[in-house]
Amino acid sequence: MPVPLGERSYEIVIGAGLWDDPATWQGLPAGDAMVVTNTVVAAHYLDRLRDALARRHRRVLDIVLPDGEAHKHWATLGAVFDALLGSGCDRKTTVYALGGGVVGDVAGFAAASFMRGVPFVQVPTTLLAQVDSSVGGKTAINHPLGKNMIGAFHQPLRVVCDLGTLTTLPQRELRAGLAEVVKYGPIADWLFFEWCEVNIDALLAREPAALTHAIRRSCEIKADVVARDERESDLRAILNFGHTFGHAIEAGLGFGVWLHGEAVAGGMVMAAALSARLGLAGDDLRERLQALLARCGLPTRGPALGAERYLALMRLDKKAVAGDIRFTLPEGRGRAGVHVAPDDAVRAVLARYADAPVAALA
Amino acid sequence: MPVPLGERSYEIVIGAGLWDDPATWQGLPAGDAMVVTNTVVAAHYLDRLRDALARRHRRVLDIVLPDGEAHKHWATLGAVFDALLGSGCDRKTTVYALGGGVVGDVAGFAAASFMRGVPFVQVPTTLLAQVDSSVGGKTAINHPLGKNMIGAFHQPLRVVCDLGTLTTLPQRELRAGLAEVVKYGPIADWLFFEWCEVNIDALLAREPAALTHAIRRSCEIKADVVARDERESDLRAILNFGHTFGHAIEAGLGFGVWLHGEAVAGGMVMAAALSARLGLAGDDLRERLQALLARCGLPTRGPALGAERYLALMRLDKKAVAGDIRFTLPEGRGRAGVHVAPDDAVRAVLARYADAPVAALA
Repeated sequence: MPVPLGERSYEIVIGAGLWDDPATWQGLPAGDAMVVTNTVVAAHYLDRLRDALARRHRRVLDIVLPDGEAHKHWATLGAVFDALLGSGCDRKTTVYALGGGVVGDVAGFAAASFMRGVPFVQVPTTLLAQVDSSVGGKTAINHPLGKNMIGAFHQPLRVVCDLGTLTTLPQRELRAGLAEVVKYGPIADWLFFEWCEVNIDALLAREPAALTHAIRRSCEIKADVVARDERESDLRAILNFGHTFGHAIEAGLGFGVWLHGEAVAGGMVMAAALSARLGLAGDDLRERLQALLARCGLPTRGPALGAERYLALMRLDKKAVAGDIRFTLPEGRGRAGVHVAPDDAVRAVLARYADAPVAALA
Repeated sequence: MPVPLGERSYEIVIGAGLWDDPATWQGLPAGDAMVVTNTVVAAHYLDRLRDALARRHRRVLDIVLPDGEAHKHWATLGAVFDALLGSGCDRKTTVYALGGGVVGDVAGFAAASFMRGVPFVQVPTTLLAQVDSSVGGKTAINHPLGKNMIGAFHQPLRVVCDLGTLTTLPQRELRAGLAEVVKYGPIADWLFFEWCEVNIDALLAREPAALTHAIRRSCEIKADVVARDERESDLRAILNFGHTFGHAIEAGLGFGVWLHGEAVAGGMVMAAALSARLGLAGDDLRERLQALLARCGLPTRGPALGAERYLALMRLDKKAVAGDIRFTLPEGRGRAGVHVAPDDAVRAVLARYADAPVAALA
């Protein structure tokens, strides 16, 4: 499936057993390959990917990062640069991100800034990365004061989604990925939301046909939005449904305590409730969304960080302007927009929905 | 003077007493201003720039970095992000770089990556920054293994070159800036080189008319090259004359031991000698260049780091591909191109010209 971005256009390839097919890698640059991955993914897949890439790159190097959102910071990024320079990589080196969203974001920002930009390929191995973070060119690391605060737009040359990698994905990570799948319906395609309601058990059971459809439709929607607004002037912000509350949850609990998808799930319920409160959508949307997320085994509330802490964290959100927090809110079924909400309305939503224990999830 | 880069086009404004003229800042975004500067420049100019900017920004913030190339690294960049986030800056914040090349490169990379990119204005206060580093959108920090290895292309919205700031510039820094002025003649405009030969004493005496012409012509040449090749596919690399040897000198001695312009001066002599050895230009070009740099009070040799150390450092240069070092070399008078040189030829040049003491300059 193409992501049409002019001279930065690229293909998303979705299927099973893709890595061993030379067509998957056709047309990508030669030169060196640097595979960036983490300890967990490396144990399952690093050797297989290295073997596949060895057929077209003169050197295949790798760096294995610690696992988890808590490591999406400076020091980890610095380790990637040390590896690139320490092994004499040059401007023609292609960086491959093998892993989930954290690996993709760190490797992508490293590729964006190493020698001011080198080629980059996403090889996402989690559902969340396959349906969301590997597509669209956003890369970043976290800052203690906020999620994804330091980064770059750097489009990959290709995204290779091999369904086989989902077989080893822990169930908690699968559920977190489903949060981003569920996200697309309310903002862009209500029929897809209803498809998710019907097929949620098949998705949780990892039935290949269901997963394939979910990944494909998610990528289609995301590619369409990104193609129309690569650098988030406005439209692209609809993809941030649930993320303003969600990022506050992640930063407030400490990065990695809740998975990103878990925080987005709680955040979407709160955003839908805020939408209902502001009269933008009916409260039945919040109800159906909350019910579906519950069936996914995802949180449907936020942790009890306190309303003022939420507000302070959300004022640092990248969409905030001059202290006004701007939320992506559903405007009926399958449509969303960015809205400034009065603090009182936000406080009312937090009073009702931000009451979960301030603790890690199972 | 315009730098025509499509939707990223911008103006270079050159003159005396510009800051107090509201026209200088006209059309720039409102929102907050974050002035990034260093201890030395702050003492002279921070209050004056803050006063000028206070007329159009609702908040004017600043962060004062330590002075010098030795601080162009991670930790300094991190301090800029801490300041931006700590004071609640948002996506509409404009970053102003007040200082020389180091401040511009660090502030520019911070502006490129803070929230994936915020507006940026260059206010260069050194000759080197006014004639070279503030124009063209290259931003970066150093890595222990190499100069400018981590960075981004991020064009400023405007470059404001106030000649008044040169009155407080130490003579050593003025000389270092002249190295980049002298650079433009051999690569792009031999008449300008001859003008420099005639006017070198006026430039060293800081005569305003001579400085104005030197800055204007340097910016014209750079803007023209950058407009034709923003991301250095090829043509833009001519601006790196002297920089392959020069970056090796800086990294080999430790960043900041020689100033960038001093290292480039030594590097240009070696590159011109290499050019003569390869038959690309006559050795008279090297002779005249060396004589002019000597009149500037600049080094005309490299420090005795040892040929193998030079070669190892230069293999990490960003222009190197697959271990081949690529040099920007004069091809006669006022023309240059990128060439791979055999190691033996490079060794011969190093044996002859890399014999200066491995030590700081006065």
